[in-house]
This record gives sequence, C-alpha cells and structure tokens, in this order.
Amino acid sequence: MTVLERFHQKDRAALSRIISFIENREDGYITLLSKIYPQSGTAYKIGITGPPGAGKSTLVDKMAAIYLKEGIRIGIIAVDPSSPFTGGALLGDRIRMQDLSDKGDVFIRSMATRGSGGGLAEATREVALALDAFGFDIILIETVGVGQVELDIAGLCDTTIVVLVPESGDSVQTLKAGLMEIAHIFAVNKADREGSGRIVAELKMMLDGRLKYRNDGWHFPVVKTEAINNIGIEKLIDDVSAHRRFIFDRHSKDDYRFNKIGAELKLIMQQRLQSRLIPELLDDKTVGNYVNLIIEGKTDPYSITDELVSKMMLKRIEI
Amino acid sequence: MTVLERFHQKDRAALSRIISFIENREDGYITLLSKIYPQSGTAYKIGITGPPGAGKSTLVDKMAAIYLKEGIRIGIIAVDPSSPFTGGALLGDRIRMQDLSDKGDVFIRSMATRGSGGGLAEATREVALALDAFGFDIILIETVGVGQVELDIAGLCDTTIVVLVPESGDSVQTLKAGLMEIAHIFAVNKADREGSGRIVAELKMMLDGRLKYRNDGWHFPVVKTEAINNIGIEKLIDDVSAHRRFIFDRHSKDDYRFNKIGAELKLIMQQRLQSRLIPELLDDKTVGNYVNLIIEGKTDPYSITDELVSKMMLKRIEI
Repeated sequence: MTVLERFHQKDRAALSRIISFIENREDGYITLLSKIYPQSGTAYKIGITGPPGAGKSTLVDKMAAIYLKEGIRIGIIAVDPSSPFTGGALLGDRIRMQDLSDKGDVFIRSMATRGSGGGLAEATREVALALDAFGFDIILIETVGVGQVELDIAGLCDTTIVVLVPESGDSVQTLKAGLMEIAHIFAVNKADREGSGRIVAELKMMLDGRLKYRNDGWHFPVVKTEAINNIGIEKLIDDVSAHRRFIFDRHSKDDYRFNKIGAELKLIMQQRLQSRLIPELLDDKTVGNYVNLIIEGKTDPYSITDELVSKMMLKRIEI
Repeated sequence: MTVLERFHQKDRAALSRIISFIENREDGYITLLSKIYPQSGTAYKIGITGPPGAGKSTLVDKMAAIYLKEGIRIGIIAVDPSSPFTGGALLGDRIRMQDLSDKGDVFIRSMATRGSGGGLAEATREVALALDAFGFDIILIETVGVGQVELDIAGLCDTTIVVLVPESGDSVQTLKAGLMEIAHIFAVNKADREGSGRIVAELKMMLDGRLKYRNDGWHFPVVKTEAINNIGIEKLIDDVSAHRRFIFDRHSKDDYRFNKIGAELKLIMQQRLQSRLIPELLDDKTVGNYVNLIIEGKTDPYSITDELVSKMMLKRIEI
C-alpha cells in the first residue's frame, strides 16, 4: 500500500511521513498536495500568537483538552520562526501534552525555521492542508510574535487569538500595529498577576478606536485567562465559537469558502513565483551578466525587470 | 526645465517632488528610477532599528549632526510601518532636527505605511536611490521594530545598528532572533538607566554564541550611548567607520558593489512580480473562474499555479 493510501485510511505514521515529505520539499510534493487537496476544506483553523513567554503553549494545550473531551479531533502546529542561531530549541526542548499526545484524536507537529520567512508560512499552510485532509476538525496553529510570518499565517486562519500577559505593558504599544490587523480575540493570560486590569483596559480602549475604522460589527472580546490553572479557557472557546457563528451569519458558508479559496490561490501563486520562477529567471550566471551590463552603464535594474515582466505578461496573453 | 533636470542641478524642491512621485507610484515612476539610477551607487547606507521608545530618532539626529560638521551630506529616511489604525502620527507629530533641517546638507523624509509591508520596503529602497543619486554621502534609514519590513530594509543597508534600552530586558529575548540576523553594531541607549550593564552583558554573551556560526571575523561592537546627552555618539560613528573599512578590507570595492547590485536586482524582480505580475495574472474574474473549478473538484490551487508558472518559464525560454 502506498503512503498516500495509508494516509487516506487514517494511518498516523503515513500522516507523519507526508508532513515530512512536504516540509522537506521532496520531489513531487506539489503533486502530493494536489492529490490530498480535494479531501481538505472542512477543518476550522485557529491561530494563536503573541510574544514569547505569554503562555501560548499551555493555552493551546488546555484548549485542545476541552475540544478533545467534546470528541473533536485536534491538529496542532507549533511554529517557531526563530533564528537558527538562537531558536528552535524552544519547541524541541519541551515535552508537551504528555497526557494528550498518545490519544488518536490529537496530532502535534513543531515546525522551526528553515531559511526564508516566506518559506515557513508556505510550509505551515501546506502542513495545515495535510491535517485538514487527514480529517482533523480543528487545527490550532501556534506562532511566536507578530512578524511577517505570523501575519501570513494569521491570514490563513479563520479565527486568530492574540495572547498577552500583564507584563506586556510596553509590548502592547510595540505590537499593537500588527496585532490590530490580525486579532479576532485577545486573551490576557496569567491574569492573576498585577497589571491585568490595566492591560485589559488598554486593549479595550484600543479596540474601541479600531471599531471606528471597521463596520463588520464584530466586537473583539478580551478574555482573562490563567491557562496553567485552567481558568478562562472555556470562555475563550465560547468566543471562538461565537466568532465562527459570526462569520457564517455574515457570509453564507459557500461565499466564505469561495473567498478563502480565492485568497489562498493568490497566496500560493505568490509563494510559487518566489520559490520557483525567480531562481529560474535569475540564476547566478544570468544575474552576473546583468550586473556587468549595469556596471557598464548600459542598463539598470528597473529596465531589466520591467522588460522581463512585460515579456512574461505578453507571452502569457498569447497562450 | 523639467523636474529631472532640476534634480540633476541639486534643486531640493525637485528632489522632494521626485520622492513624492516615487512614493505615490505615479505613472512613469519606473522610467524615472531608470533615469536616475546611473547617478546612484556612491552613498553609504546605515540602517538604525529597534523597539519604539529606544530613542532612535534622537540618536539619528545626533549622528547626523556630527557627520554634518565633517562636511558630509546626510539623507535621512524615517520609516514607520505602523498600522493605518494606530500609527503614522509617531513621525508626523514631532518636529525634529529643527536646528539641522534648514541647512542644505541634510534632507529628512518620513515614510509611513500604505498598504502592504512589502510595498513599504520597496518604496524605501527607491527613495534611498533618489537620495543617493541626488548626491548625499550617507543615508541614515531609521525603522521601528524588527518585522519583515525592517529585515528587508536592513538588507539594503551597508551597516545596520540595532538600538536597545536597559528596560528592553525581555525584549532582547523577544527580538533577538531577528536582531542577530541583521545587526552589525548594537547601541544600548539611555545607558545611564539601571540595567544597562546587564543588557550589555546579555548582548555580548549572545554575540559570542553567534560568532561560532560565522567566520567572517567581524566582532560586533556593543556601544553604550545617551543620545539625548550626546554621549557615545562619536564612538558609534567610529564603529560604523570600522565596519565600513572591514567590508572593503574583505571585499574589493568592485566585488562588494557587484554582489550588492546582484542582490538588489533579485529583490527588485521579486517585488515587481508581486506588485505587477500577480495582479495581472490573477485578476478577480480569473480567480473567480479558477475557484469555481476548484470547488467543482476539477482542479486545485497547486495544479493551477504549477501550470501557470511552468507556462511562463517555458515561454521565457523561447523568447
């Protein structure tokens, strides 16, 4: 039996193998993605992001535990876009969810950076696709921080939770720009610590400001949690459910899916152009030749790229 | 006389006009960039980044003042990638460098976000090109934080300074992944405050760790500054000079320029594909047709993009 056949028969080892295949960009992985794509489209994706030390992993674990009790199958992707110099161990070091991970209804995968940030968001989307196609009902995607990778990942989630802690203080200011764009729900974790009232108030004030610019009618909940003591998690899950209902009240399920697939298609195209077309168009030798022409003053980067792009567009129209 | 002619005659009003033209992506701006490109290539670009409130603007202003005394012409670009919801005012509010900005040898431009992050890094590169072609010797590019925009901008600078403050504490942990990739020099500003010794020690420890992974021989300086009191700025400038000499000791000036132009060409190509080819390839109607085919199960996003990219590559080879 092929790995793909075993995948379709819900063999977890086959799922692991397929995820590694995707992560490592092995030959034929695009064909593989095409083959599993038709089975995908039913999982609900929840993004959980925030600064390091905010307790995201614990929160994710506790959320997963509640979902599992309700018979919901949970996939978890923990993404760590840290530098190869300093990071990675963050996820590798910890043995998490020991009481959960041996059950059949949960699957946990850590992903660390490998080269470009764009590549990591791309790989995360593809791994989420595999979990979706495998049959998980909810996929929890945990990321650190609010850099471009996190923004890209948030874009593929249906609901995004931003986790902060009372100590964040300045961080709220630091992060707020990015946060405001991506969050649907805020969790103030470690809410037993000093300052949790202040940060909740600050967030609410900020959110009131934001509401003026949006008119979709979603009122961003700010939930106090103590993940480690299992406090506030059910409220958080209720808010996720409320957001899910909100989405499907406003859009028919078909419309929502139509728009999501459209956005996804553009994103995939963009990522593929970057990872495939540019290395092909601009291999080292070609770049060297162009640079020499530029240094000789015979052309410039803007004329070159303009010409290349125009030619490609022209050719495409003739196809 | 055309604006371009006046630009070449060092008319500052023409420079302002041309920068606005570029920033607003007015028709023909690519042609304009081609025309000014041959005059560029001599300016040395210094990136200054770090969290909000670290005192970057003051540091930039004090550095500029010293350079100006030495007769060096200074262009300053202050980039604020904040959200349109929350940011922007940061730069607009303050009236800075009042004692400098009326002199002919300094030019300051603030740039705030307008849509996509990628677009901002692209526009910053182009504005830096205009300042370079206009004849500024050094361009100081100030950015907030260490998101993707800042990483992209750092990539176009020759020397990048990361500014922290004693209070950063946790932030060092938060930011370090990104920081380690882009910094050549660290400035611990507001060094009179408590904790400056600790953060300097932390940074040095981290940098020792990094050295193991690099062997270019550059020893990252950590400089204590009090920008507001004009303390440590000359040391910082000396370190920038040392890094500049280091670059040109290791590479011939020609090699360095060759590599920089090559990297720039790839970046421009990438940004142009994103801003021009994708909207052209995937307009709303085309996307809608594809999505319907996907929903009907006749194809999937991976097959579509694979086919599009393959066709473009094939056609290009035939050109």
